[in-house]
Amino acid sequence: MAKVPFLTKEKAEEIIKTYPTPFHIYDEKGIRDNVKALIEAFSWNKGYKEYFAVKATPNPFLMQILQEYGCGCDCSSMTELMLSEAIGAVGDDIMFSSNDTTLEEFEFCNNLGGIINLDDITHIDLVEKACGALPKKMSCRYNPGGVFILTNGIMDNPGDAKYGMTKDQIIDAYSIMKEKGVEEFGLHAFLASNTVTNEYYPELARVLFELAVEINEKTGVKISFINLSGGIGIPYTPDQESNDIFKIGEGVHKVFDEVLVPNGLGDVKLCTELGRYMMGPYGALVTTAINEKHTHKEYIGVDACAVNLMRPAIYGAYHHITVLGKENDPLSCTYDVTGSLCENCDKFAIDRNLPKIDKGDILFIHDAGAHGFSMGYNYNGKLKSAELLLKEDGTVKLIRRAETPKDYFATFDCFDIYKKLVKE
Amino acid sequence: MAKVPFLTKEKAEEIIKTYPTPFHIYDEKGIRDNVKALIEAFSWNKGYKEYFAVKATPNPFLMQILQEYGCGCDCSSMTELMLSEAIGAVGDDIMFSSNDTTLEEFEFCNNLGGIINLDDITHIDLVEKACGALPKKMSCRYNPGGVFILTNGIMDNPGDAKYGMTKDQIIDAYSIMKEKGVEEFGLHAFLASNTVTNEYYPELARVLFELAVEINEKTGVKISFINLSGGIGIPYTPDQESNDIFKIGEGVHKVFDEVLVPNGLGDVKLCTELGRYMMGPYGALVTTAINEKHTHKEYIGVDACAVNLMRPAIYGAYHHITVLGKENDPLSCTYDVTGSLCENCDKFAIDRNLPKIDKGDILFIHDAGAHGFSMGYNYNGKLKSAELLLKEDGTVKLIRRAETPKDYFATFDCFDIYKKLVKE
Repeated sequence: MAKVPFLTKEKAEEIIKTYPTPFHIYDEKGIRDNVKALIEAFSWNKGYKEYFAVKATPNPFLMQILQEYGCGCDCSSMTELMLSEAIGAVGDDIMFSSNDTTLEEFEFCNNLGGIINLDDITHIDLVEKACGALPKKMSCRYNPGGVFILTNGIMDNPGDAKYGMTKDQIIDAYSIMKEKGVEEFGLHAFLASNTVTNEYYPELARVLFELAVEINEKTGVKISFINLSGGIGIPYTPDQESNDIFKIGEGVHKVFDEVLVPNGLGDVKLCTELGRYMMGPYGALVTTAINEKHTHKEYIGVDACAVNLMRPAIYGAYHHITVLGKENDPLSCTYDVTGSLCENCDKFAIDRNLPKIDKGDILFIHDAGAHGFSMGYNYNGKLKSAELLLKEDGTVKLIRRAETPKDYFATFDCFDIYKKLVKE
Repeated sequence: MAKVPFLTKEKAEEIIKTYPTPFHIYDEKGIRDNVKALIEAFSWNKGYKEYFAVKATPNPFLMQILQEYGCGCDCSSMTELMLSEAIGAVGDDIMFSSNDTTLEEFEFCNNLGGIINLDDITHIDLVEKACGALPKKMSCRYNPGGVFILTNGIMDNPGDAKYGMTKDQIIDAYSIMKEKGVEEFGLHAFLASNTVTNEYYPELARVLFELAVEINEKTGVKISFINLSGGIGIPYTPDQESNDIFKIGEGVHKVFDEVLVPNGLGDVKLCTELGRYMMGPYGALVTTAINEKHTHKEYIGVDACAVNLMRPAIYGAYHHITVLGKENDPLSCTYDVTGSLCENCDKFAIDRNLPKIDKGDILFIHDAGAHGFSMGYNYNGKLKSAELLLKEDGTVKLIRRAETPKDYFATFDCFDIYKKLVKE
């Protein structure tokens, strides 16, 4: 499927007059259309709720868009909880799915009324210690171990994952929590990442639904919400087919009717913790070609680097690139598209067939809306760039300013040398 | 060779009273002993100078220690130049070895009198444009292409590296630069990373020395300084043997006498751009065990994560771990040592044999002095930790404060929501 940028060259040139490249830009219309479809796909389930995985794109202005549709926040750290609180997402709007958690984080989450999703049976004591007593509503994270193989062959390796409890442990955990006064119970599992298939959620749902029935039989605990977590991916390459969220919703519905309804659990509410699926395709990294090299290979140097988008550098991940204004030009050149880090892995593309690129051309790097800005570092002392929102009315709004050297040097502000660093 | 931590349990406990874990700590004595040895090993070369690769550990207090021994700064970005300026390292104390460089960076470097090490022949025009004219002293970066194989079999792949010029290009570049008024010339190459062998520098030196002779013959340009760049590594695993810097210095000396001296280039000054070698072993990440899990594997959760040290998570890199106070205990347990990121790769060790670890135990993660703090990101909203210096007199000095949520949210300070984020 052809990848179509949500910016034209003309629009990009207009934006750059105010906000120089590089920057991340997000497509409000795309975000809204996608979340609406998600909610419709699960509308058969009364109480369905998406908790946006804040780590994917921790920007309050984007979180607020999803909040309009009733989405909550999936948080995993103190500052993510603070972001949620700042947009007024508290109480049941917070799902705290964290691991290797500190007491301070449990306490902070509990003070906001958020739902703690326990990663381990040993955390029962920690939550009691941190919060004085267990909250009335809690969730537990399951890890079935072994290898998880989808019918289409896609597999992942939960047995090697640090998350969640074994079946025996989770059953014990519910019994203990019930005894300690917990009244409402959730169940959660994450078994595979970035799946581009309509089978993952239904197959995961079957694992969780059957476990919910077993927990009910063995402990008398009635699970009231089941969290399918993340894992619904996006197609990064043009030849991949997108997930069909309606087929996924129907697939889960079928298993729900097969497993939960006949066992008296037909009022279970479903939740999801999608991040990449909510934002990935609706964000792009926009960068300008500033250098070219013709050495042992052909290189185009851009003004972004792995600091802005790390996935190609560290995972070798494919991100599609459109040269704006050259959408229909023949792919007559083969380039390495590089950033400026002193790391040879700092390449947005290797041996990529692209139209002939001239200095000044604007490159639209697709699917950078999730795990893009959020994974940015400051290696080589490079500064992180701004985030912009392309609104539905076509206007552009700054939603995070770019870093300055002062930000970079902030953790020296208690030393005399700070004055020399920032020339104050 | 056994890896010995430069902190005892007692000392660590004393430090933690003031500076809670996690933190990076650097060993002043180790840093000083190492730089003294390096300089002695190259003392046969009049004018030898180490330019510390700032990107490895961009901390002005550590840079100042090296500065006492005459070291300059190898910079690759604007903020690294600013760091150098702040400690008074300007003029010939700056080597600007950058790639995919902006005009602003060339200009800033030139204003500080730093030496620009050109990555590409096309940059001649850019430097002229940025600086008005070419500086009197300049360097060029060479890339021989192909595969670079050391006699001991270690190899790297310069032909796939984005850095440097081909031989034809570099010879042209010197001719052009000479014509344009450049008076003093340097030559640079980087062919392999983190080599743990005494052969790399001498073999690289031969490539560069022979090229300097050829350049002289073909263009009349007399190279006056040759930059062996980085690439001297450190042993991360206990079974690796350290480089012997004196053997390396002697090895380069021999090639110098063989190639340069007979060709009338015996007054060439050598430089190096070492980073990892200068700081890696003299920095550690100190972290406390705060959680344990007994699921499908045995896990120890610590209060540091990939945000503090990313190499194990993204490269699968080995970093040795000592449990302080249990140095002599049998390695009776096999653990995954995990951080708290919602990324399964966030593990400092996988299936590592270690003494039995109890909650509260302090772990000393070795060789985190370079590419440790500097590669830190804020993924999952986690905050970067402090840097400390263990001084020669045994006292401890804070040399970078830990981040706070306010730092994390700084790029929202131009929006109303900032007040809610930082509760101002």
